[in-house]
Amino acid sequence: MNALLKYETRAQKVGSLVSVGLDPDLEKIPSAFRSQKFPQFEFNKYIIDQTAEFAAAFKPNMASYEGAGAQGMLELEMTINYLEKAFPDVLTICDAKRADIGYSSELYARAILDVLGFDAITLHPYLGKDGVQPFLSRKDKVSIVLCRTSNPGAGEFQDVESNGKKMWQIVAEKVASGWNENGNCMLVVGATYPEEMKIIRSVVGDMTLLVPGIGTQGGSVQAVMQAGKNSKGMGLIINSTKAIIFSDSPAREAKKLRDEINLYR
Amino acid sequence: MNALLKYETRAQKVGSLVSVGLDPDLEKIPSAFRSQKFPQFEFNKYIIDQTAEFAAAFKPNMASYEGAGAQGMLELEMTINYLEKAFPDVLTICDAKRADIGYSSELYARAILDVLGFDAITLHPYLGKDGVQPFLSRKDKVSIVLCRTSNPGAGEFQDVESNGKKMWQIVAEKVASGWNENGNCMLVVGATYPEEMKIIRSVVGDMTLLVPGIGTQGGSVQAVMQAGKNSKGMGLIINSTKAIIFSDSPAREAKKLRDEINLYR
Repeated sequence: MNALLKYETRAQKVGSLVSVGLDPDLEKIPSAFRSQKFPQFEFNKYIIDQTAEFAAAFKPNMASYEGAGAQGMLELEMTINYLEKAFPDVLTICDAKRADIGYSSELYARAILDVLGFDAITLHPYLGKDGVQPFLSRKDKVSIVLCRTSNPGAGEFQDVESNGKKMWQIVAEKVASGWNENGNCMLVVGATYPEEMKIIRSVVGDMTLLVPGIGTQGGSVQAVMQAGKNSKGMGLIINSTKAIIFSDSPAREAKKLRDEINLYR
Repeated sequence: MNALLKYETRAQKVGSLVSVGLDPDLEKIPSAFRSQKFPQFEFNKYIIDQTAEFAAAFKPNMASYEGAGAQGMLELEMTINYLEKAFPDVLTICDAKRADIGYSSELYARAILDVLGFDAITLHPYLGKDGVQPFLSRKDKVSIVLCRTSNPGAGEFQDVESNGKKMWQIVAEKVASGWNENGNCMLVVGATYPEEMKIIRSVVGDMTLLVPGIGTQGGSVQAVMQAGKNSKGMGLIINSTKAIIFSDSPAREAKKLRDEINLYR
């Protein structure tokens, strides 16, 4: 099944646009997990089991695993294998922020989409379309291109203006037109920039946006929903990481986010 | 020792501005290596031993290792450990093209610069300075920011023009001014764009440029040297990968490139 359809089917089934970030940074997970043989995997499994009924997607950030070396890569593999077995209808996003040229991009696509088997991956736009072609060519997988990121300094290059258009708008237009031949592109648009999100929504039609920046980064669910939902009251994957996974009750926090989002659908 | 000084010292010692790319893609290395227990490491060791006397830097591309899974990451670790032991005065560049936000970037910096111990890393600029701050803050390490890449479609976003300046020029200016507080920044400028390189040289003073795109990608050594060398006849790290490592005689090809470069210094 195409990964976009997988997401939409899951989102409708559980009535949720929530993505749960799986960033099991070894310094931050509870000590009870740190002493286990596979601390990152065991922590992820606990989070997944707690939150899956409220989640349409799970999004591990590759940095959390690469930061733990070869062992971390093994635990990422265990995590994706567990997800595929226990919750095969939930979208899996590898937040890897990759992009290289030619054969190097092909190798990243193989590693993350084919071998690990993620449904989707985040990508840097700076090299242009040919830099990410191996990802775009995988029709059943989703390429999620960084457009307007959630960090405070995002505007340094993203706000550079050319003929009345900011760079993030130019990226949105290019991805929505020339890059999306297989209907498998999405964009990253931070919850911290709802004004920009509104313009991006007007540029990309019903394309789905991955939205980080809710919760500890300060983005508002209401503002995101008003600026970002598409004509079907969907078209958003709203991610929360720390506010869910490092809380006393990940299930409660995931449910709370789902319900808050649904107030504005 | 600061990594920039390490490079300059080595380049002067061996009279070479050559970087040898270490991309031991499993489908491309000779079959004699493929049957070994650590094929990527053994191939790298052979290349390193053949070419080190002509090399000022070695540059593994992370995609070649990530593409081989946890085993690949182990063989990258074996490679950097071998380099540190056998050729401690050669610059080591991890061509990882990373950049994320906040703590995720910190985790990448730890993994690649602290734990693996590379001297330098390549970075995407799109997120802005705060996205790569953890790399910039490591004073002894070098941050090499993508500016004008060597791929055919590089211009899609890099040529977007604002107030008479292309995006690659804006990136060069920002990195040379605001990002380079620790004097530890370099830029990636493809050999396939010598006109742009000439302008970038005029913008960044004596800053060192990492130059991919010589050899199989079609860049000319003469054009690069004329456009890119700094006031000391240096300021360039000229990388070649396939034309060296997949040749019958890596030593001969590395020497040939060194000598050709030196014709124009």
